[in-house]
Formats: sequence, structure tokens, C-alpha cells
Amino acid sequence: MQHYAIGVDLGGTNLRAAAVSEEGEVIELLDAPTNGQRGNDAVLEAMAAAIKQLRDKHGRARLLGIGVGVPGFILMDQGLITDSPNLPSMKNFPMRDLLSDLVDAPVILENDANAAALGEKWKGAGRDVNDLVLLTLGTGVGGGIILNGKIWHGMKGMGAEIGHITVNAAGNPCGCGNVGCLEKHASATALEAMAAMLFPDQHLTAKDLNTLADRGDEKALMVFDRMGDALGIAIAALSQIFNVPRYLLAGGVLPAWPHFAPRMIQEARRRSFNFRYCGDANRIAPAELGGHAGLIGAAYLAISGAKPV
Amino acid sequence: MQHYAIGVDLGGTNLRAAAVSEEGEVIELLDAPTNGQRGNDAVLEAMAAAIKQLRDKHGRARLLGIGVGVPGFILMDQGLITDSPNLPSMKNFPMRDLLSDLVDAPVILENDANAAALGEKWKGAGRDVNDLVLLTLGTGVGGGIILNGKIWHGMKGMGAEIGHITVNAAGNPCGCGNVGCLEKHASATALEAMAAMLFPDQHLTAKDLNTLADRGDEKALMVFDRMGDALGIAIAALSQIFNVPRYLLAGGVLPAWPHFAPRMIQEARRRSFNFRYCGDANRIAPAELGGHAGLIGAAYLAISGAKPV
Repeated sequence: MQHYAIGVDLGGTNLRAAAVSEEGEVIELLDAPTNGQRGNDAVLEAMAAAIKQLRDKHGRARLLGIGVGVPGFILMDQGLITDSPNLPSMKNFPMRDLLSDLVDAPVILENDANAAALGEKWKGAGRDVNDLVLLTLGTGVGGGIILNGKIWHGMKGMGAEIGHITVNAAGNPCGCGNVGCLEKHASATALEAMAAMLFPDQHLTAKDLNTLADRGDEKALMVFDRMGDALGIAIAALSQIFNVPRYLLAGGVLPAWPHFAPRMIQEARRRSFNFRYCGDANRIAPAELGGHAGLIGAAYLAISGAKPV
Repeated sequence: MQHYAIGVDLGGTNLRAAAVSEEGEVIELLDAPTNGQRGNDAVLEAMAAAIKQLRDKHGRARLLGIGVGVPGFILMDQGLITDSPNLPSMKNFPMRDLLSDLVDAPVILENDANAAALGEKWKGAGRDVNDLVLLTLGTGVGGGIILNGKIWHGMKGMGAEIGHITVNAAGNPCGCGNVGCLEKHASATALEAMAAMLFPDQHLTAKDLNTLADRGDEKALMVFDRMGDALGIAIAALSQIFNVPRYLLAGGVLPAWPHFAPRMIQEARRRSFNFRYCGDANRIAPAELGGHAGLIGAAYLAISGAKPV
């Protein structure tokens, strides 16, 4: 009898829940609206409904537990979401225990980017290493750091906020209060803002910009060069700080890899002697699990029985 | 009968060796020339002579071991110094085993800034926490990172190279190949270079500049403001990445704290929401052990019996 865990990836708009085998295979995947605008109880119910549907089908006795990736900050020892930019109603919200009561099973919370990093470490582009840094390139830039095989949380679960390190001391303003944050120079939002400067009469999405770059449009390529420079500065700093073997990139902007990666790698090499010195022993690489990374990582928390620290 | 360890701090010009009690007290401190220009054997002999002198006085039977802080990169598992900017003859130099043979006692090598961070964690400004980041402000800027009470080394012993993270994407050129490295904006060398721009007819040292700033000289204060900005950018990034409770500053430039700290703290607060959010639970503070930090940290490696990983 095969055991499984349920991984949940809670997004601002949609949530996904998956039954994941002990070997890390996604057995079944469900999709549902998050219902964030209807309040925290509605979100809990939406999650519980998806979890119960998977559990009824795959068996209660074989369920090892539930891991939930959340777009916010978590006090790990309390299972408390202190804040979530994408789910503004979740302030000091004790999701872990409430959800656990609803579904009558153990629940582990984890930051969504941390869960994705753990998924890539277990089954993806970091499966051969014990230490890695993951950057997720989406609406913003998220981060996850795996050290000695474990997620680095920091004292208030606010570690790995890599999207908000400064890459340009006098750069673009960020809602966080800083200027020149990585995510204001290297996210889909940043790409679209740069596109608006070069193509003022069009409303180009990051995807449109990628299509233009595929066709060799020089202005679109300029934008991806700037993105690559910003990522290179950040990854160089991470390399000087951590000296780990793998720096992974994931998220919705990843398909534009051919356009931003050359400058990113060039800039990281130029700016980090650690990166240069370690040669093939360290590298920057695309993540491999796509949208499944967070689900697999969240499930792994239950499968491994890892207690959050 | 009290046990003790010997901590050695190997500098480019001078070496210091201390007998350190199990409680972290420096019992006796010796000073000697490093003799780096006379080659690696001469350096080994200078270290061995100091170690033997301390051991003969304080007793062979009570000696727990020897820790050596080295200004370079170390392959911890091999006890090999791969490179040392301040001791250029030490390339792939197996110091640990050679010194151990010479003094007939176990030796542990550690990077000097890492040893200082560990010393501050054990007996200094980080004794109440388990995680911290230390920056040493001297000729360059060094770094040491303590996570879960242990030094973070990275895969090739090249972690915590905080002096070479970019704080100004188009900043001053650095010998490492990058531009805008923290240490080119916040070390004694950087202070002296900035002073040369503002006081072209004088050859001011960092200490001279501090004296001028003490007297309220506006140009000198400008220089320390720039240093504070650079440190603030770096510490903000470290705070977003690690979310640890303590960021410590040490080194020869520390006496200028009153001049650079206000801008440093202001800039770190502005640029890091982690730092702001965690309030009193995290802070930037001066290190407390001065020049003894590295000696005490190196001795602790022997006292704690910690195996390098």
C-alpha cells in the first residue's frame, strides 16, 4: 500500500492541491479559486474541500500529512501567518491549527518560494546537491534558500526575501520602501514597466515581450539584458555570501531564459570571484519542476516528517 | 586543573597567539612577526615557536588543541589553504597537518573573519543569540556568518565574502574584477581614497579622517556618510536574506562608529522591511571583543571540539 501526502499551493487567485507519492510523483492535481476576497474562512473552506476530495479518493489511512505553501510570512513554531501581500486578510492568522482541525490531519505551513526550493532540492534541478538558492521570477521575485538540506527561515520566517535586496542603489522605487530592489528590475512587473518606456503606445505583457525578443526585436532584447544584469548582480552577491553549488531560477518569466540568461551569467561571473573560482562545481540553472515545485516541496514536508524549526 | 586552548591569529605582518581558558578568558598573549616574505616554512616556524612558548608555560597536559585564524580560503576537510591575498605564498598549502606535526598537537584552521564571528558569538556581542553576521572593517571588509551556532563555510570555504558584494552597480573598481564592492566603499582603504578626493594635498589615513570628523569637519563627515550608506545597503541585503537577530561590526575602523553608524542604520532600516519589521529583536551593533575576537574564536574551535564541516 503506497502512502502519499497532499501538497497545497495557495495563490492569491487560485489554489492547487495535489496528492504526491512518497517518491515525489504528482498522482492527482486539483485546481480551485482561493476565494481570498470572501475572507479567511472561505479560503480555509476552499483548501479543506480540495484536501478532502483528494483524501476520499486516495484513502485516509495512506495519507501522511498535508503541507501548504503560502504566499506570506510564517511564524513556523506557531503555524501563524503574520502577513501576506497577496492575501491581505491574513494578518496573524493561525492557519495551521484551523486547517488541521477542519481536515482532521496534521498540517505544516511553509512559505511558497521556500516550498518550491525544497521541491527542486528533492526532485528537481537541485536533487544532486544539499545547498541551493532559488529565485522565482513572477509578478515579484521570491526566494528560497536550502542549507544542509533544510529551508533557512530566519528568526521570523522572513529569510530569503531575495526580491528585496538592492541591485541598484538609485533604482526603481519599490512598495517595500526601498529603491532598486531586485524585483523592480527583474520581475514580470519590471519587464512590463521597462516595455512601457520603450513601446509607449502598446500595453505589452512580459509574454509579449518574450515573443518580440524571440523575433529579434532589439528593444525587447535590451529589456531582457537589463533584467539579466540585475539578476547577475544579485546572484553574484548570493554566491559571495553562500558559496553554494546551485542557483536556480523558476517562475512565469522562466521561458524568457534564452534572452536574460546570457547577461545574467556574464554579470554573475564578472562580479563574483567565488562563482568564477568554483567553475563547474557551481552553476546557475533553470528549475525543472515548473508549477509542481511548490506542491512537491509542500508534500515533502509531510512525507519527510520534518518538523519546522 | 584548568584546561586551555591556544588561539592563533595569523596576519599578513604579525601573528598573535593566546592561551585561552575554557571560559574564554585570554590568559596570555604573544606577538611575533609573521615572516611571510621568508616563505611558508618561516611562517610555520614562527607559529610553532609561539605555540610552544605558551604550551611550555601553561602545560602540555592541559592543552586542548590549537585553532588558527588565517586570512585566506580554506578547504576545511583537507586543512588546506587554497589562497591568501595577504600571504601570497600560501597557495594550496596544507598548513593544518604541517603545523600539527611541528607542535605535536591537533590543529584546526579557520578563516580569520569567521573565527572572529565565532568569538563574538561565544563571548562577545552575539553571546545571547545563535545566528549572526559579522563584518570586519579594516584594510578590506571581511565577513563571518554564524547560523545555528556554527560557521557557514560554503562549498569551498569561500562563503561570507561580504566585502565583495555589490553595493553600487557602477561603483569603484575592485581588484577582484567587480566594481562597486562593499569594501571599495566602506573599508579604511575606501575612506582614504575618498579623503584623497576631498583633501587632495594631504595624505589622510582613516584615523586622521576620524579625528577630523570628531572635530566636526564637514568633508570628513561626508566621507563617513558615504561609508554608512554603503554598509546600510549591504546590511539591508543581509537582513532580507538571513533575517538573523544580530549584525555586528568590527575591525580597525570601528572607532569611527559615531560617524558612520547613524547613516548605516538609517539606510538599513529604509532598505530592509525585515529589519524594520523585527524591531528590537534584530539590531546592528559594534562587536565587543576587539582584536581578541579572532583569538578567542580560534581557541573555541579547539575547546568545543567542533569538527570542521
